[in-house]
Amino acid sequence: MTSFGPQIEVAIARVRADVARLHGELTRYGLVVWTGGNVSGRVPGADLFVIKPSGVSYDELAPENMILCDLDGAVIPGTPGSERAPSSDTAAHAYVYRNMPEVGGVVHTHSTYATAWAARGEEIPCVITAMADEFGGPIPIGPFAIIGDDSIGRGIVETLTGHRSRAVLMQNHGPFTIGANAKDAVKAAVMVEDVARTVHLAREAGPLIPIAQEAIDRLYDRYQNVYGQSIDSRRPAPN
Amino acid sequence: MTSFGPQIEVAIARVRADVARLHGELTRYGLVVWTGGNVSGRVPGADLFVIKPSGVSYDELAPENMILCDLDGAVIPGTPGSERAPSSDTAAHAYVYRNMPEVGGVVHTHSTYATAWAARGEEIPCVITAMADEFGGPIPIGPFAIIGDDSIGRGIVETLTGHRSRAVLMQNHGPFTIGANAKDAVKAAVMVEDVARTVHLAREAGPLIPIAQEAIDRLYDRYQNVYGQSIDSRRPAPN
Amino acid sequence: MTSFGPQIEVAIARVRADVARLHGELTRYGLVVWTGGNVSGRVPGADLFVIKPSGVSYDELAPENMILCDLDGAVIPGTPGSERAPSSDTAAHAYVYRNMPEVGGVVHTHSTYATAWAARGEEIPCVITAMADEFGGPIPIGPFAIIGDDSIGRGIVETLTGHRSRAVLMQNHGPFTIGANAKDAVKAAVMVEDVARTVHLAREAGPLIPIAQEAIDRLYDRYQNVYGQSIDSRRPAPN
Amino acid sequence: MTSFGPQIEVAIARVRADVARLHGELTRYGLVVWTGGNVSGRVPGADLFVIKPSGVSYDELAPENMILCDLDGAVIPGTPGSERAPSSDTAAHAYVYRNMPEVGGVVHTHSTYATAWAARGEEIPCVITAMADEFGGPIPIGPFAIIGDDSIGRGIVETLTGHRSRAVLMQNHGPFTIGANAKDAVKAAVMVEDVARTVHLAREAGPLIPIAQEAIDRLYDRYQNVYGQSIDSRRPAPN
Repeated sequence: MTSFGPQIEVAIARVRADVARLHGELTRYGLVVWTGGNVSGRVPGADLFVIKPSGVSYDELAPENMILCDLDGAVIPGTPGSERAPSSDTAAHAYVYRNMPEVGGVVHTHSTYATAWAARGEEIPCVITAMADEFGGPIPIGPFAIIGDDSIGRGIVETLTGHRSRAVLMQNHGPFTIGANAKDAVKAAVMVEDVARTVHLAREAGPLIPIAQEAIDRLYDRYQNVYGQSIDSRRPAPN
Repeated sequence: MTSFGPQIEVAIARVRADVARLHGELTRYGLVVWTGGNVSGRVPGADLFVIKPSGVSYDELAPENMILCDLDGAVIPGTPGSERAPSSDTAAHAYVYRNMPEVGGVVHTHSTYATAWAARGEEIPCVITAMADEFGGPIPIGPFAIIGDDSIGRGIVETLTGHRSRAVLMQNHGPFTIGANAKDAVKAAVMVEDVARTVHLAREAGPLIPIAQEAIDRLYDRYQNVYGQSIDSRRPAPN
Repeated sequence: MTSFGPQIEVAIARVRADVARLHGELTRYGLVVWTGGNVSGRVPGADLFVIKPSGVSYDELAPENMILCDLDGAVIPGTPGSERAPSSDTAAHAYVYRNMPEVGGVVHTHSTYATAWAARGEEIPCVITAMADEFGGPIPIGPFAIIGDDSIGRGIVETLTGHRSRAVLMQNHGPFTIGANAKDAVKAAVMVEDVARTVHLAREAGPLIPIAQEAIDRLYDRYQNVYGQSIDSRRPAPN
Repeated sequence: MTSFGPQIEVAIARVRADVARLHGELTRYGLVVWTGGNVSGRVPGADLFVIKPSGVSYDELAPENMILCDLDGAVIPGTPGSERAPSSDTAAHAYVYRNMPEVGGVVHTHSTYATAWAARGEEIPCVITAMADEFGGPIPIGPFAIIGDDSIGRGIVETLTGHRSRAVLMQNHGPFTIGANAKDAVKAAVMVEDVARTVHLAREAGPLIPIAQEAIDRLYDRYQNVYGQSIDSRRPAPN
């Protein structure tokens, strides 16, 4: 049995529980079908992350079934869940953790409306204030890239580095989201589908009213700094 | 511990319970995601209202977590929930209570179809009888206004004062609804999304048949006076 | 306490239970919001029907809250539920029972897609085999008519008399459905929304392929005669 | 009581349980309404399959209510459930089992978006990677055929033989899916509706970006061979 010392083991246990539980949010909001979609979370203080097993039903996602990987995406042998294969998107998650040290959580889904924008390779314009709050501007499109090497991970990192958005729509594929932790990345996955749906519906009925960049900036700054009870924001709250 | 005398305390307890419970209607009807949306209710007989805390999960909305505010939107210290920040929309709710004394409840969501109309700045035409019943005509658009001062509250009040509609679509933002009490405002939030969806779908498939103003007036008058068991209407039922 | 003799009382109790329970199908399939929509059922062997009270929550629809009416829509005094007002659509249900003796159940909703067709006053063309099975052709539009006299009931009866369809879309209003009993009418309400949605979506993406009348006739005849376990069909099964 | 020897009886019991349980996936994903839709599963090692009874509520689909048929679709007398009529689509299922020996499960629904494509007789283009993974290309259209002889079964078999897709959209009717077993066919039914919806929405908003055939081939090969925990794939996993 591989062991990492008591402090890291506690952190692993917490991330396993979070990642297992947070998959329930993907089904609650209808972002996934069957065994699709995956959530991962970085283990604070270690070069490790926890991810969903491949092709396993959402009803079986207990903490001990989650899989512990190193930052190359290799399963840590002798740990709970290690007898199973990790999500087929593990390489993309690992690439993000290796290259974006501020990221503590990654989520991937094929949620309907976000994937529809991705199938056209079209970024989602920022025309609702909730989108300015959460993403600070449009949701960008990432390159076409298929499973098998680092190209998906590289596409995510290149698109999101220096971008306010925590969500990228990989062309012809679907959304990947990042966050300070797994919960924050799941929130971004929920919100990107919500704005993808609202803006899709708004635009099919007529011309959209843009929001001025200055207003977008003010909304984004305010939301990142003062909204909520200061537990999920990417930056520390002001007090 | 702040206290308001036994009668007001009973009223506060009742509004806390109502407001907490009514948030469940927002999730039941799919009007909100994550921690978005908020319901408030005026405390009858006092210059107080009860509102949801900011950024807290819908699973944790017990009565004692609701926050008691004065009509300037300031949290009443030493009351249950006062250790948390109130909804980031509290200033808008407070402005409505200060300026529309007949209003006993306010609801805000980013419900999908209503927000889609708001992103185009387009009022919803009254082409179904249920809409004539409930809103007495079109659902109006309010101005673009962002969080940070009274401009959202002022936009709501200016749009709805003297208007039959209990719902306003704030441009690029989403619906705010008012009512005789919190339940009535929640009903308006549910109904505005319902009509926003139906009219959106109707219109995308071809031209709508208008309803004559005279018929709208008769439907609205009848519904406000005789529908239901006379507990939620804005005016006393004829009995 | 009004009494109708033991046999009729047993029948009333059964219809009360059916009508109360069947309202749950309206919420299960998302056909109604808040207190909207209503189901009624004729009491076999008596000039009576049972209907939902007006403006009462779907969580409170127990059999003893259902309201017993005569075929003029007058509440039978001294019976369970008679202290409440019946559905505001009671007059329309009563008109149907008086004028269509073969009808044992009536349902009304404002279900989204069916109401969208109604807002354009456009019948739903029969382009899917499930619709040929269930309705035998297009779903017709009924006249614009508002609450207050017999005009809604008359519009339903005039449109459906001699028509295969058990559903009519009342213009600018929504669907009414009829059936051999309350369950059969509820099934028609579920199916009319289902076909309204499918045909709406089909048509917005391109031209529909019509089904030949001869094929529609064969599908309808077969389904009415042999489908299912012979408990819900309008006509007796062949053996 | 008909008996098939202990080994076959064990297999029958397992397929009954699977088929009964898997109907719950059709309602979970909203693919069916009322009593519509049906799942069947072949009994390994015997010329038998298990299918849903006709016109029975999804709440009553216990294993002992499922119906055992031979490969001509005739009910095996004296077995549990044999007092009921099997699904009205039994002849089509039987035709598939007789003519496609590799097929172990068949599913039929009228799921909304898939049926909408079927009403236009238009195949679903392969523009999302999940579709390349699962179906290896477009979802084909089958001929118009109505119940009453072998034409539906023949249409399914002729369309899917030699095709990568496990789903066919029967024109003006709806999807039929096949799989290595009942679960695999249900997965295909869930996925075909998911891609039908996503591609419908994508295309109504603008031009789609095609995926190169070479990329589709690589995605399909990889997914069929390495995805998941090697329990549902049509072909044996590589190790």
